Amino acid sequence: MNLAESKPSLIGIDWGTSSLRAFLIGADGDVLDTVSTPQGITYVKDRDFDGVFHELVGPWLVQVDLPVVASGMITSRNGWVETPYAQVPAGGSDLAKALVKFHTSSGQTVHFITGMTTEHDGAPDVMRGEETQIIGAHAMGMEAGIYVMPGTHSKWITVSETQIEDYATYMTGEIFAALRGHTILGTFIEDGPFCEDGFRKGVASGLAAGQGLLHTLFHVRTMPLFGKIPESMTADFLSGILIGSEISAATQALAPGEAVTIVGRDDLAYRYEVALISADFECKRAPENIVARGHFEIAKSAGMLS
Amino acid sequence: MNLAESKPSLIGIDWGTSSLRAFLIGADGDVLDTVSTPQGITYVKDRDFDGVFHELVGPWLVQVDLPVVASGMITSRNGWVETPYAQVPAGGSDLAKALVKFHTSSGQTVHFITGMTTEHDGAPDVMRGEETQIIGAHAMGMEAGIYVMPGTHSKWITVSETQIEDYATYMTGEIFAALRGHTILGTFIEDGPFCEDGFRKGVASGLAAGQGLLHTLFHVRTMPLFGKIPESMTADFLSGILIGSEISAATQALAPGEAVTIVGRDDLAYRYEVALISADFECKRAPENIVARGHFEIAKSAGMLS
Repeated sequence: MNLAESKPSLIGIDWGTSSLRAFLIGADGDVLDTVSTPQGITYVKDRDFDGVFHELVGPWLVQVDLPVVASGMITSRNGWVETPYAQVPAGGSDLAKALVKFHTSSGQTVHFITGMTTEHDGAPDVMRGEETQIIGAHAMGMEAGIYVMPGTHSKWITVSETQIEDYATYMTGEIFAALRGHTILGTFIEDGPFCEDGFRKGVASGLAAGQGLLHTLFHVRTMPLFGKIPESMTADFLSGILIGSEISAATQALAPGEAVTIVGRDDLAYRYEVALISADFECKRAPENIVARGHFEIAKSAGMLS
Repeated sequence: MNLAESKPSLIGIDWGTSSLRAFLIGADGDVLDTVSTPQGITYVKDRDFDGVFHELVGPWLVQVDLPVVASGMITSRNGWVETPYAQVPAGGSDLAKALVKFHTSSGQTVHFITGMTTEHDGAPDVMRGEETQIIGAHAMGMEAGIYVMPGTHSKWITVSETQIEDYATYMTGEIFAALRGHTILGTFIEDGPFCEDGFRKGVASGLAAGQGLLHTLFHVRTMPLFGKIPESMTADFLSGILIGSEISAATQALAPGEAVTIVGRDDLAYRYEVALISADFECKRAPENIVARGHFEIAKSAGMLS
């Protein structure tokens, strides 16, 4: 397809906590153009979401009137418009029915894709944005199975042929940052290139930690103190312990050799790949821009595409 | 015994990370007087340990020449004099043999009680100061068994009739502070009185968390978000999850109904008591000033008492 000739049919916005990406999407769900800013919802001054929206995607709307869908933390309590959660299990058509319409200061309609909630043993779980990525991955041919979306709050998502069945959140990324920045474990940590050896040692510890994570973490202090690993290895050793512990817990229902699909940035996805393989699982990678494809599928299901 | 008539025979110093307590100890191991300052080793300006020492215990030494022993983080790399660790298993007489002599600027001799190390599956563990408390508790008639010393770095210590057999560190207190202060889990936390109901709910979650602590912690966010617990309960809910997880891991070798001896501050000891009882263990409390008694026992074993 020649991108120059494709017809713009939708604007999709992925507005998260720490960044905002907007996609100009063509009639076949292909991405024609992308713009982005670091103005995630926690960085929007005076909560002027309306201003950020018009500044970023206004130029696209001047040329032609397009429908707009938006997903991510923008629909949370600290976002632009708080929307209720859809309940799992749910698929793209359920999300299409649950779209929340909103009119901006210019009269533009934005359709917010709401997040999803689940509950285990009385404890709720939440996500906003990942559900749209999964819908996109599915539309791009990725199979049913287990998906992991590494990050500040990793999501482990069970996907069937037709819908998102269930999921669980692991606070791995945020806890890594808090431990590194605000405990004695950060003492020896220096910025440097990824140390795969340290990471693998950490993964082995994390996979073996069982219930004793609060104990195993202390080894990030003692191993360099006793010269058992160099100080330069401690950041990735800590990262490995946390990711190993996450994988150990999240894969309890999986058989050895089963496949896990990784969705995410390359550097982080690589860590999960290393750790999953060392825990005897197979890995697949999701393609890029699945979120834009999710926007497209949900908008199509809602009859928004002319 | 009339304290006014007891003869001072030893000065014992418990010099930790965040505070310093010094004891004037009588001929029978009784505490005649106590002084303290918040100048733990991280709060000593310009590393002037010598100055802090003389300011605090100098008045006692002016009146009569007394032997001095010191225990705690003061013998760590960031302390006054770094001493090697004794290897477990070890008892009071081993610690007496391992005393490290040091002369202060005034010529006063200080005998440093060194810490103890152990190793499990190639990963070292360390403590400095707790070993002296255990020696003291034993001398004061506390039985062999499992001791827990709650705190920034909780220690679970296995004590036989004659010595410290082994131990493990859990970073519960420090991780609580990091999660509370530097993650989204602190969002709803307000200062307030202890909420035992929230704490008990957390303990139940922590005991059941198994390997999924990184997941269970996310409920500190979602439970108040969904109105399942009031926001005022979140601090103690988080505390309960961490302490429950610690107890679950640390008691794996114990049979239901076995006793655990708690050493520590009243408020924290109470939390551990609540959590241990809800996990079907018995609790005992160690008496106060066991560290001074540990100083006395080790000094006596070293032949320092005239």
